[in-house]
Amino acid sequence: MFDHTPLALAQALIRCPSVTPEEGGALSFLADRLARAGFSVERLVFSEADTPDIQNLYARIGTAGPVLVLAGHTDVVPPGEGATWTHGPFSGAVADGFLYGRGAVDMKGGIACMLAATLAFLDRRGPDFGGSIAFLVTGDEEGPAVNGTVKLLDWAKGRGERFDHCLLGEPTNPETLGEMIKIGRRGSLTGRITVHGRQGHVAYPHRAENPIPGLLRLASALIADPLDGGTAHFDASNLEFTTIDVGNPATNVIPASAKAVFNVRFNDDWTAETLGAEIRRRLEAAAGNAVRFSLDLQPSNAPAFLTQPDAFVDLVADAIEAETGRRPALSTTGGTSDARFIKDACPVIEFGLVGRTMHETDERVALADLERLTAIYGRVLDAYFPS
Amino acid sequence: MFDHTPLALAQALIRCPSVTPEEGGALSFLADRLARAGFSVERLVFSEADTPDIQNLYARIGTAGPVLVLAGHTDVVPPGEGATWTHGPFSGAVADGFLYGRGAVDMKGGIACMLAATLAFLDRRGPDFGGSIAFLVTGDEEGPAVNGTVKLLDWAKGRGERFDHCLLGEPTNPETLGEMIKIGRRGSLTGRITVHGRQGHVAYPHRAENPIPGLLRLASALIADPLDGGTAHFDASNLEFTTIDVGNPATNVIPASAKAVFNVRFNDDWTAETLGAEIRRRLEAAAGNAVRFSLDLQPSNAPAFLTQPDAFVDLVADAIEAETGRRPALSTTGGTSDARFIKDACPVIEFGLVGRTMHETDERVALADLERLTAIYGRVLDAYFPS
Ligand SMILES: [Zn+2]
Ligand SMILES: [Zn+2]
Repeated sequence: MFDHTPLALAQALIRCPSVTPEEGGALSFLADRLARAGFSVERLVFSEADTPDIQNLYARIGTAGPVLVLAGHTDVVPPGEGATWTHGPFSGAVADGFLYGRGAVDMKGGIACMLAATLAFLDRRGPDFGGSIAFLVTGDEEGPAVNGTVKLLDWAKGRGERFDHCLLGEPTNPETLGEMIKIGRRGSLTGRITVHGRQGHVAYPHRAENPIPGLLRLASALIADPLDGGTAHFDASNLEFTTIDVGNPATNVIPASAKAVFNVRFNDDWTAETLGAEIRRRLEAAAGNAVRFSLDLQPSNAPAFLTQPDAFVDLVADAIEAETGRRPALSTTGGTSDARFIKDACPVIEFGLVGRTMHETDERVALADLERLTAIYGRVLDAYFPS
Repeated sequence: MFDHTPLALAQALIRCPSVTPEEGGALSFLADRLARAGFSVERLVFSEADTPDIQNLYARIGTAGPVLVLAGHTDVVPPGEGATWTHGPFSGAVADGFLYGRGAVDMKGGIACMLAATLAFLDRRGPDFGGSIAFLVTGDEEGPAVNGTVKLLDWAKGRGERFDHCLLGEPTNPETLGEMIKIGRRGSLTGRITVHGRQGHVAYPHRAENPIPGLLRLASALIADPLDGGTAHFDASNLEFTTIDVGNPATNVIPASAKAVFNVRFNDDWTAETLGAEIRRRLEAAAGNAVRFSLDLQPSNAPAFLTQPDAFVDLVADAIEAETGRRPALSTTGGTSDARFIKDACPVIEFGLVGRTMHETDERVALADLERLTAIYGRVLDAYFPS
């Protein structure tokens, strides 16, 4: 028989070298186990000019509703150039109560727990559990995310798949399993300010127009006041300047222009459009007639979104509390994930392992966490499909 | 006989392609004419690691005092890549009352006028004119200025040469001959500010420390108030930021540090030391405990200097007024010149042609200006060495 413990499944996945865009055998492994359990499995390769082809997987068991989607990715970030791992990044070694390897928490470990919980659930309940379970797994979450979840959802929609809820297994806990569910994410908007001046010699400033004081004025104005004070489920929106570049090597020359780039993580007080308008308003007020500038706002595919706390969030939180003794915080912090795409198909929340070592050398997961997360996912399945 | 008109001499010099560091035959031409007129001529090649060898010339006639130095450079800036000159930059073509060519005003034309005036003066007065005339001519004014006037002055000092006054023939008139004498120059000080932060992800700003707001604060504080209100002979000191560079290509990353470079042109209210202290004081006041920064002030070889208006300045101004009908303004504006080095050897003032086309395509000088500047220099010699 196959070993369906979360540890064995996670080890098998970690040993597949699936650094984006390589599939590395990870989706094949998943496809095999799901098919054996009765899922109908689709392997999908998506392509687009200037990006590598990417393999994806969609698997479903059941024809009735409700449809619960378990979502994730099997691709991982590289082990790091010259990084010295205590145990090989693709070894799946166990030591001192931890499983080591790239993807241990982000998120082959989470996928393994979802798979282990699902296989056990089907063992318990059989195929007629009163609904459907779908696995939605991409190999392009850590990369450009062009040939992954977006196209997989389009494809599913095209064939008439309808989803009721989605649980995405990304690592959501900062330190301890059970701390945090993510129910949304701030949006992301990037902008570039260029202040235009006139080049000249520093000894003749009246014949030139230095763009740098104007840029100082505009940039300072943009960060002078907070964008908002936060909302019910979101932190305050936050603007960070990420670079300023003039690139003038000559210390006796006043440059012709100066550029700054900023990124805003914004909450549900804003859309990309209203936020862009506010930024432009602040810049124009600061510029007056004294500063000539242009503002270039990059189209954003990361709007703010929120899955309203409801029965599904409660159901997951109950499962977590029952297993860990903690009531998880409902959070909207952190960077983007594929939840920004899934939210257009159905309500989505995220809960997975402890993310502390993700993307780092010696990424690792506590064996106890693998067991407990599997138990939590099992409770979610039982509650979602009551017998 | 040789043609000693300023036009003929200027044409001969322009036809020598002496783009820094090339001598191009210009100093040889000068050496030949000076030697024929009775000067003892020294050709000096100076060297230093990482810079090209440079030819220079020192020539003197007379052994008695007072010693009047006529100073300048025969090197020129390049004609400009792909620039389309109406007449070849080294052709010395005459058209519509103008002599065309690189160096026509900066400053082969000025050298030609000095030479023409001196040769005519010696024709008039013979070798026993009651003093000495020295030509101090470098081929490294437009370049790094490392193997030029500085070393030439050192060499002259080493052999016991003592100078009473110097007239430097750089183009000093903005529009019309006779407008402006330069009697000093603002100093130049360059500084680099680095603000230190901590790199991180824009979605987790509390785990990072963005150096850009700190840089905005420090840079804004530095230009908030004028450094001074100007002095008797100097404009107000002026600080220009010349570049800000962070160089962070990732719009989701908060950078670790941010750098800005500034240049100050300062008047005789300051030395490089007192100015550096004031800049540091302003930065420290703005930084408080909130901004970690370092300030790197580059050692400056361009202190502010002033040749006090006195009898020599009056003598030159009188000569200009007699010839042009204008009383020249005594100015300290503009970029640096080799006067910043000469001022340590003797009082130096600058007067030459109209600089409007210097360093540009179709650099050119009015033939009438060549004649008039020669006449002015002739009046200076007559007045400096009264018969
Ligand atoms: Zn992930
Ligand atoms: Zn010059």
